[in-house]
Amino acid sequence: MRIAMVGSGALGLYYGALLQRGGNDVDFLLRRDYDAIVRDGLHVHSISGDFHLPKVAGFRHAGEIGIVDLVVVGLKTWSNDRYEELVGPLVGPDTMILTLQNGLGNEERLAELFGDRRIYGGVAYLCANRGESGRVHHLGAGRIVLGALLAENAGQAAVLAELFTLAGVSCRAVDEIMVARWEKLVWNIPFNTLCALRQRSVGELLASPKMTGIIRGIMGEVIAAANAQGFREPIPASYADEMITFTLAMDPSYRPSMQLDRMEGRPLELEALVVKPLQAGEEQGVSMPLTAALYALLDLP
Amino acid sequence: MRIAMVGSGALGLYYGALLQRGGNDVDFLLRRDYDAIVRDGLHVHSISGDFHLPKVAGFRHAGEIGIVDLVVVGLKTWSNDRYEELVGPLVGPDTMILTLQNGLGNEERLAELFGDRRIYGGVAYLCANRGESGRVHHLGAGRIVLGALLAENAGQAAVLAELFTLAGVSCRAVDEIMVARWEKLVWNIPFNTLCALRQRSVGELLASPKMTGIIRGIMGEVIAAANAQGFREPIPASYADEMITFTLAMDPSYRPSMQLDRMEGRPLELEALVVKPLQAGEEQGVSMPLTAALYALLDLP
Repeated sequence: MRIAMVGSGALGLYYGALLQRGGNDVDFLLRRDYDAIVRDGLHVHSISGDFHLPKVAGFRHAGEIGIVDLVVVGLKTWSNDRYEELVGPLVGPDTMILTLQNGLGNEERLAELFGDRRIYGGVAYLCANRGESGRVHHLGAGRIVLGALLAENAGQAAVLAELFTLAGVSCRAVDEIMVARWEKLVWNIPFNTLCALRQRSVGELLASPKMTGIIRGIMGEVIAAANAQGFREPIPASYADEMITFTLAMDPSYRPSMQLDRMEGRPLELEALVVKPLQAGEEQGVSMPLTAALYALLDLP
Repeated sequence: MRIAMVGSGALGLYYGALLQRGGNDVDFLLRRDYDAIVRDGLHVHSISGDFHLPKVAGFRHAGEIGIVDLVVVGLKTWSNDRYEELVGPLVGPDTMILTLQNGLGNEERLAELFGDRRIYGGVAYLCANRGESGRVHHLGAGRIVLGALLAENAGQAAVLAELFTLAGVSCRAVDEIMVARWEKLVWNIPFNTLCALRQRSVGELLASPKMTGIIRGIMGEVIAAANAQGFREPIPASYADEMITFTLAMDPSYRPSMQLDRMEGRPLELEALVVKPLQAGEEQGVSMPLTAALYALLDLP
């Protein structure tokens, strides 16, 4: 399958490398790592084993790639206003678009631009970061849950899940991808906002019983907002406990992406990760006062 | 009247200078400013007019001062475990103790140590800071509301109010000093915690409508906790609006003390300003989730 990776941060480079190693024809839209990757290929340093792809097809502009079978979008969501420029040239009549971005609103915006029948969403549970140019570090996990925006495309979502599975990624297709999105938000909203605000790792937050209580409170707000959306399968209240247990088992020094973004002076993914969930809650009459307070604190100029 | 000022930060130096200029015999317990003040006296730079006291009685230890008529306590509340050492030597049979410290618990702790019949509490609305040694800057306001811990001492509280009034301080005595304490907490809790957390001035917070909404939410929690304490005169909900209006009229660059403490690496007055109000609310069944979240964030090691 001919695949284009749009947004070659840690996530795009890691999954793109696995897909290429799995026998697919992968093109990478690159910015920071272009020179290093075109010259020396891509080095993957992974807890599952290091490997090197000596020859990688890197491009600076989407127009040089042309139409592909599948576009995998791994952009930071604050670049979503560049979908037309970065994704548009890759889309032909039968092209599928899979967004692995965080938060809400990505599938909907892609559907507005390119039609809903080709849109798929995936939630990636991946701990990875970029090191020096041309190298990506896979620190843990990597599972993907994906689904089609339209129920009628469930069969095609299963084909995409198989594509990742064959490339060595733990991946399954689900009927309601938006439930998976909200489930990830149950983790993402408290840990991204709190770690970013205080520049502390997940382990440093959970070392404080008071802070753990606040995290549970925020998780409760997100679960309530999720369950007000009318999904067939609501998220149980116990999911908050599961997420605390899951995080306690992680490397305590893990720093969520928003913490790194803030530390390095990049924009924050507040719109997709916090604003849209707040709006979705509000539209269903669910108030999220803790989430709103964290948003106001982080959004202060 | 023979008065000892214990805790000669900006508040102690400013009110002590006014009391001395008003004809009282004032002794200052000094630490940082001892050398400068004993040598050159005390310079007051005030929006109401500068003045200089060439001769100031400064001491390093309370034992050197001996028993006085009135002890005015202006210590940071994280020094309250030193009350015995710093206040004890000043207290004779008829000595009154007036704490102008922030937050809850100061009168109660002083009463435990020195007996409740001599304890008075005052709430100071003062914008002041120390500059170089021997100088204090009065930037705005200065009003004091004070009252006796015991209702039977209301007459003596009126005498203390008169003492400050004669020294040029706008001062009135009230029956329920704890209502005045909580009223000040309605301002102190949101502005101290939020300004400290984001290192932003009061004006920078109020420039954000979202943040103003959060501030109102926190004020609502504090008013609810206050009114659950069973005071004869509850705080009206409109008090939050009054405090917003009051703050909008302040110098927008004003930085609350907790912001300065955090910026300069000093301990924070969390116990008196946040923990005790949270406990007082909780004991009456009032939950304060925003206040608790800010506490957890600021208290993180």
